[in-house]
Amino acid sequence: MTNQEPRRVDAYAAHAAGALLTPFDYEPAALGPHDVEIEITHCGICHSDLHLIDNDWQTSQFPLVPGHEIIGTVAHKGPLVSHVDIGTRVGVGWQCGSCLQCEWCERGDENLCADMVETCVARPGGFAERIRIDGRFAFAIPEALRSEVAAPLLCGGITVYSPLRQHARPQSRVGVIGIGGLGHLAIRFAHALGCEVTAFSSTAAKEEEARAHGAHQFVSSTDDRALKAQRESLDLIISTVNVPLDWKRYVNALRPDGVLSFVGALAEPLTIPTGLLLARRRSVSGSPIGGRVAMREMLDFAARHGVGAQVETLPMHEVNTALERLRRNDVRYRFVLERG
Amino acid sequence: MTNQEPRRVDAYAAHAAGALLTPFDYEPAALGPHDVEIEITHCGICHSDLHLIDNDWQTSQFPLVPGHEIIGTVAHKGPLVSHVDIGTRVGVGWQCGSCLQCEWCERGDENLCADMVETCVARPGGFAERIRIDGRFAFAIPEALRSEVAAPLLCGGITVYSPLRQHARPQSRVGVIGIGGLGHLAIRFAHALGCEVTAFSSTAAKEEEARAHGAHQFVSSTDDRALKAQRESLDLIISTVNVPLDWKRYVNALRPDGVLSFVGALAEPLTIPTGLLLARRRSVSGSPIGGRVAMREMLDFAARHGVGAQVETLPMHEVNTALERLRRNDVRYRFVLERG
Repeated sequence: MTNQEPRRVDAYAAHAAGALLTPFDYEPAALGPHDVEIEITHCGICHSDLHLIDNDWQTSQFPLVPGHEIIGTVAHKGPLVSHVDIGTRVGVGWQCGSCLQCEWCERGDENLCADMVETCVARPGGFAERIRIDGRFAFAIPEALRSEVAAPLLCGGITVYSPLRQHARPQSRVGVIGIGGLGHLAIRFAHALGCEVTAFSSTAAKEEEARAHGAHQFVSSTDDRALKAQRESLDLIISTVNVPLDWKRYVNALRPDGVLSFVGALAEPLTIPTGLLLARRRSVSGSPIGGRVAMREMLDFAARHGVGAQVETLPMHEVNTALERLRRNDVRYRFVLERG
Repeated sequence: MTNQEPRRVDAYAAHAAGALLTPFDYEPAALGPHDVEIEITHCGICHSDLHLIDNDWQTSQFPLVPGHEIIGTVAHKGPLVSHVDIGTRVGVGWQCGSCLQCEWCERGDENLCADMVETCVARPGGFAERIRIDGRFAFAIPEALRSEVAAPLLCGGITVYSPLRQHARPQSRVGVIGIGGLGHLAIRFAHALGCEVTAFSSTAAKEEEARAHGAHQFVSSTDDRALKAQRESLDLIISTVNVPLDWKRYVNALRPDGVLSFVGALAEPLTIPTGLLLARRRSVSGSPIGGRVAMREMLDFAARHGVGAQVETLPMHEVNTALERLRRNDVRYRFVLERG
């Protein structure tokens, strides 16, 4: 076999919106000069995979192979790939391409490129034995990170690391709303960055877990008096939830120049009195994944500080069990599929 | 007369919400060690003065002497005042005090101090012959600025200069919504800063004026197609209006990392789909007046670049005429009251 002779790829695909995944194989595209073929060992499951399977965004194409928190080893590479070798352990996240020539790409914010290519949108993703993908969006995984805890960093990790990178200093007081796949990573990263961390959750039983991840305070998001008491106490709040909350309370919890950053879109539009922004020069912002410089920096920082996801692993052939349990939020905090 | 023997001050006051102003005199407080007494020559009229007169914020105390865009000369000063001399021409804006010891004051953001003292709230303002006020919030006016064009800089000018200072570079593309007292100054400052400036107004007839102030483009805020065409074109949009607009269009007009900054509070809460923020890492923010460093910098920059307000002057005794015309928006763009 040469690089130019593709073997069919065994994968798991949904064949219709909301359907169970079934074994599926496809013929991979020819390996381009910048491409790598990755022998997949692990793939995390993100809520976005459920949205894609369910066609929540009305953009899904079936059969659909989900998966965009991929870890594996480079099995083949195109002639222009020089930053990784055959055998290098790499990871791929939500983004697997961009124009690489617009101003956002040139400044290292490929995640803001209008021509973003997404790993498992209109192309097969990581619930598979292999994937061929632009090597410029495959990142070497530091040795200190085990594959199963590294996989969720490629999407969940970079998603929460980016607003911390943009807005937080070690001296900052950071709030994290929601303690799930994204939230627990936000707490771990904020703690590792040296910040004071306040976790907000509607589940009082999560207080102990939140503190174990590194939260210094825990506030019940259903206790209005406790929320009010947070007034002007935080420099940055990262919201990882998509449910409606009393956002005025969270804006009021910001200190002057504070930022409320959404890393997941809310189902309902956000309603905020502008006076709350004006009086204390506060901002409401959003942050989508991260560029390649941020990704490498995040992986390096995670390795140095031992930040990884808390995961539950399942063999890849049990993908439907994992998806079904994820629908019930029955996971602490991320499923990672493993190939034996 | 010594500093310690106050003479009564002739002023104009509203005695009830919405009332016409009538002559009124009051006994000034003793001149404190940091205070200056300013012989007022000019005072601009800001929309906030109307809000105070009308008790729109439910905080007004009557009799109420409005006026917080004050220019005059130092007539007396306390023993601890060293940065201005008797005879120095100075200006005072919305803020005339702060704690000067919190972290925001210490870093030069006195406008974010929780203990802000406001020039004409619960104390008599600038529609008067004199005012005694903390000299630490009286700013020397550069010689190049005529008093009548400088007066509105003290509140209107700093209000729009601050978000430009915070978010714009000379390379930025800046939008300004509303071409009135604040908006025309925003256009003039943005132009002088070297930015590309787009003016948005519901009044098509203002295009020529907007261009005369330095706008490079004019977009009708009632032309939905024209608004849509601004998609991802601006780095910063400063909204000077308080009317409801289709804010989604303006957020969509922001480039990646762009900021929509409100310098006046909207009557209705702002409603924004968070997806619009997330996709391009945009922010919605607010900005209140400015600190002392920003104020001195703004005055210096305005003098160097010839940025002043376009004003209509009236003798101070015609204050009710000015207020009545301001209620009808019959002014290009700021009234400044003069004492003969």
